[in-house]
Amino acid sequence: MFDAKQRMMRKLLVGVLAGSMIASLSSGVTAEETETSESSSIKNMILLIPDGMPHDATTLARWYKGASLNLDSMASGLVRTYSADAAIADSAPAGTAFATGHKSHTGYVGVLPDKATMPGQQAIAPGDERRPVASVLEGAKLQGKSTGIISTSEIMHATPAAFTSHYPARSNYDALSMQQVYNGVDVVLGGGSSFLSSEGRKDGQNLIASIKALGYDYVTTPQQLQASDSGKLWGMFSPAALSYNMDRNPEEQPSLAEMTKKAIDVLSADEDGFFLMVEGSKVDWAAHANDPIGIISDVLAFDDAVKVAKDFAQADGETAVIAVTDHHNGGLTIGNRETTKTYDTDPLSKFIAPLKRAKLTGEGLAAKLNADRTNIQQVMREYYGITDLTKEEIQAIREAELGRMNYVVGPMISDRAYIGWTTGGHTGGDVVLYTYVPEGQQRLMGVVENTDIAKYIAGEFGFDLGTTTQRLFVDAKQAFTAIGATVSTEADQLVVTLGNNKLVLPFHKNVALHNGNKVMLEGVVVFNVERTSVQQQAVDLLKAN
Amino acid sequence: MFDAKQRMMRKLLVGVLAGSMIASLSSGVTAEETETSESSSIKNMILLIPDGMPHDATTLARWYKGASLNLDSMASGLVRTYSADAAIADSAPAGTAFATGHKSHTGYVGVLPDKATMPGQQAIAPGDERRPVASVLEGAKLQGKSTGIISTSEIMHATPAAFTSHYPARSNYDALSMQQVYNGVDVVLGGGSSFLSSEGRKDGQNLIASIKALGYDYVTTPQQLQASDSGKLWGMFSPAALSYNMDRNPEEQPSLAEMTKKAIDVLSADEDGFFLMVEGSKVDWAAHANDPIGIISDVLAFDDAVKVAKDFAQADGETAVIAVTDHHNGGLTIGNRETTKTYDTDPLSKFIAPLKRAKLTGEGLAAKLNADRTNIQQVMREYYGITDLTKEEIQAIREAELGRMNYVVGPMISDRAYIGWTTGGHTGGDVVLYTYVPEGQQRLMGVVENTDIAKYIAGEFGFDLGTTTQRLFVDAKQAFTAIGATVSTEADQLVVTLGNNKLVLPFHKNVALHNGNKVMLEGVVVFNVERTSVQQQAVDLLKAN
Repeated sequence: MFDAKQRMMRKLLVGVLAGSMIASLSSGVTAEETETSESSSIKNMILLIPDGMPHDATTLARWYKGASLNLDSMASGLVRTYSADAAIADSAPAGTAFATGHKSHTGYVGVLPDKATMPGQQAIAPGDERRPVASVLEGAKLQGKSTGIISTSEIMHATPAAFTSHYPARSNYDALSMQQVYNGVDVVLGGGSSFLSSEGRKDGQNLIASIKALGYDYVTTPQQLQASDSGKLWGMFSPAALSYNMDRNPEEQPSLAEMTKKAIDVLSADEDGFFLMVEGSKVDWAAHANDPIGIISDVLAFDDAVKVAKDFAQADGETAVIAVTDHHNGGLTIGNRETTKTYDTDPLSKFIAPLKRAKLTGEGLAAKLNADRTNIQQVMREYYGITDLTKEEIQAIREAELGRMNYVVGPMISDRAYIGWTTGGHTGGDVVLYTYVPEGQQRLMGVVENTDIAKYIAGEFGFDLGTTTQRLFVDAKQAFTAIGATVSTEADQLVVTLGNNKLVLPFHKNVALHNGNKVMLEGVVVFNVERTSVQQQAVDLLKAN
Repeated sequence: MFDAKQRMMRKLLVGVLAGSMIASLSSGVTAEETETSESSSIKNMILLIPDGMPHDATTLARWYKGASLNLDSMASGLVRTYSADAAIADSAPAGTAFATGHKSHTGYVGVLPDKATMPGQQAIAPGDERRPVASVLEGAKLQGKSTGIISTSEIMHATPAAFTSHYPARSNYDALSMQQVYNGVDVVLGGGSSFLSSEGRKDGQNLIASIKALGYDYVTTPQQLQASDSGKLWGMFSPAALSYNMDRNPEEQPSLAEMTKKAIDVLSADEDGFFLMVEGSKVDWAAHANDPIGIISDVLAFDDAVKVAKDFAQADGETAVIAVTDHHNGGLTIGNRETTKTYDTDPLSKFIAPLKRAKLTGEGLAAKLNADRTNIQQVMREYYGITDLTKEEIQAIREAELGRMNYVVGPMISDRAYIGWTTGGHTGGDVVLYTYVPEGQQRLMGVVENTDIAKYIAGEFGFDLGTTTQRLFVDAKQAFTAIGATVSTEADQLVVTLGNNKLVLPFHKNVALHNGNKVMLEGVVVFNVERTSVQQQAVDLLKAN
């Protein structure tokens, strides 16, 4: 740690260095990183997102745990979650807002919406529709900081994708994961290996081989995760999403807290600092299913990860921690229609005891049922403590689709625990903002926009998101045409020619072939059918010829 | 306003004075007020309570309004609302927690519970059951500060009662209002005149006459309210609760903001400072009815009162403002079962436009229906913009009980606005804490207990609630017997004799008759059937003989 004087000296020095780097960049010299432009004493930022967490979930989890949450001391305000054109956000625009400072459209990851119709939104300029916008992770990377993302879903799911990739369709895992692999993220931990293997991809590419070729330590077990001493670490612990924490086999999958701990260990070795995004992804999925056990399981697992982050931040003294869900989901309340007349005299045990009897989430329970589902009553007794199943309930469990068991048993245990729900979808209320900052530093408070999260992070790190977008995502056709070059799309790459010079830019990668020579770009080339966006650096490469 | 040096001087001076006052008190001299014991630069405190506000209500009201709420900048944490023995609080224990720093039992106002069974609660000592505990308003009064309470319900309703009276049954309006009248509160504004008139009381007393005899300016119209220049002001603008703001006739009833403004004008004349509690009471009632129009009406009216408080605080520089609901209610969400699949593309207007068409709350609507309810469709079209009533809905409106119309039409407009509800009762989640403090002062943040609100106010004002309780509420039988006196209950008073000396203490008043001479007490005598609690001052009166 620096004292104030050292800090001031460093700041001045960095200012000079940054100026010279920009000069050298525009003269055609490539650099993967520029020096840290330090404008505050927050050097590291950890953003933790319990996806789709309903408001009462923390209270419920706290009663279940029987002790304070690690989140509790951090509550400092509220966050508005609406997207550019809808009152209730999907994770793609909500994650994009946290990551880039721009509200977007449902399904859009790391790109602008087509239109911004919600009150107070700035109109999207013609030609800017679906344009990639830089994330705080990308901005931090340009400052020389290390970066990481962690999720319990597949890592190419909307929220982690929003920090590391850009595409106007969250379902295009091929494009999103390709960008994630080539975006220079130092630590990537979570699920989703099937979407990296050639069998699981439409493009047939073997991205696991690519990950290894890029120098990552690719690990698939908690043991390997712990053992790794690499500064570039990619851990995939499941073909798709990880298990809910309550259902998790600790031999096969690390906890969110363990992944967070390891990521911080790796990233904090960088003296320029780091940015880490941690998502407790499946709180959202449990909420969609109206499964309170899944909620409790993964809110508590998330809260354990918050502890890891907060403990590090407290010891470190230069780290800020933000925790915030991207939107509410399900409308869970402690109390339902059955407690309308009795709520004020109902003991705590009325709500918590039935939940305590459950040993697995609705998803975990499915694995305990035999193939012809003749052991429903036994399984529900043993793993849920439910002995009063109605005929209709048994029937419903018997007929539940594979992978939808939590949608069936979630409401059953909710009824027994007097937990209310209003919907199977997201809801539109403000969400709670949790912050921890080093002493003397500014924390976010009051009611802020979800886009303010990105702006705060960029501001504290000392970079401008707009400038970063201009540097990372230039409209290729416009920029190359402007210097007299010819542009064409060939297979999965952009080919640009200017006189005798040829620049080949494979889509969704950070690589350029300049007259046959490989040049590393400082971001990924984004192709979204209508537009290819490239780094200003790529334009400068050709301009310098 | 004082500068720092003056402040320090005053603090020292006050310390000396306080010491001498205690000495003179115990030597038998009565004093209605002691000097301010100033330990911080927060001189005035305004606590605003939107009773029973569901979490999404602020987001909904903000969209409806189309602009930020005055509350928004103040969001700073969360508050736990459970009572001493239940996970979900009723307004009586919740208000008691805010007022006294003690969690209590459902229905109990300003007194301890019989037992405290919720996790982490300190056990209630044998003999302490239902014992009155001092409120922050009573503590502030002893410091020489002026005090006030405002509500849109009848003023003897649970929340305002919790700050000004003590009884283990919220329904005992006779006892609660008697104490309110005799507790030396400077400003009382709201509804409830019928419970002060002899016809509306079991005890047949005319408390309106008492109020006037005590020197209050008793006003009943907004005009009279504005015109009053009295330092003691009692305004009753309705026999029971006031109208929802949207239904209100401004000639007959002032708005919550107008009452707040007037109260601050009166109270801020006291250079010792003031404490003011402001309740937007009927947010809770609308939530019980699942009526989103009532919610929006009274959340926005509440927020206007917050603006009045905040504007004063900002100009004054020595005033803190806290706004916090006492518990959630209804489980309202923006989005319901009908939006489970569509939420992320639903435009804002889908939720807000149907609400905007309503011109009255469900309660206000009832007055527009004719006696035989033949104009249902016309009224619903004109005042709710609803033209697609089903036969069942028309039937339900026709059959609605008087005073329950909001329970019938609330859900109808909720369905049309895709507003979800989980219950007709309170729910158990943490509520949002809103704070404003003068620059440089400490604000409450993080997740705190509802009891911390009282402790914070007392702490900032520089008094101890426990000490205040010891001063105001001594067990009469115990204390008088200990000095050899004889105690008996005669009609509505306690009669104490010691030798030739006789002390008569009428219940629920702040008056003692000492050998026939009237002595004003510094608090009210509380009789709750099992116990009479009196001021230490009253014991000292007899002891001094």
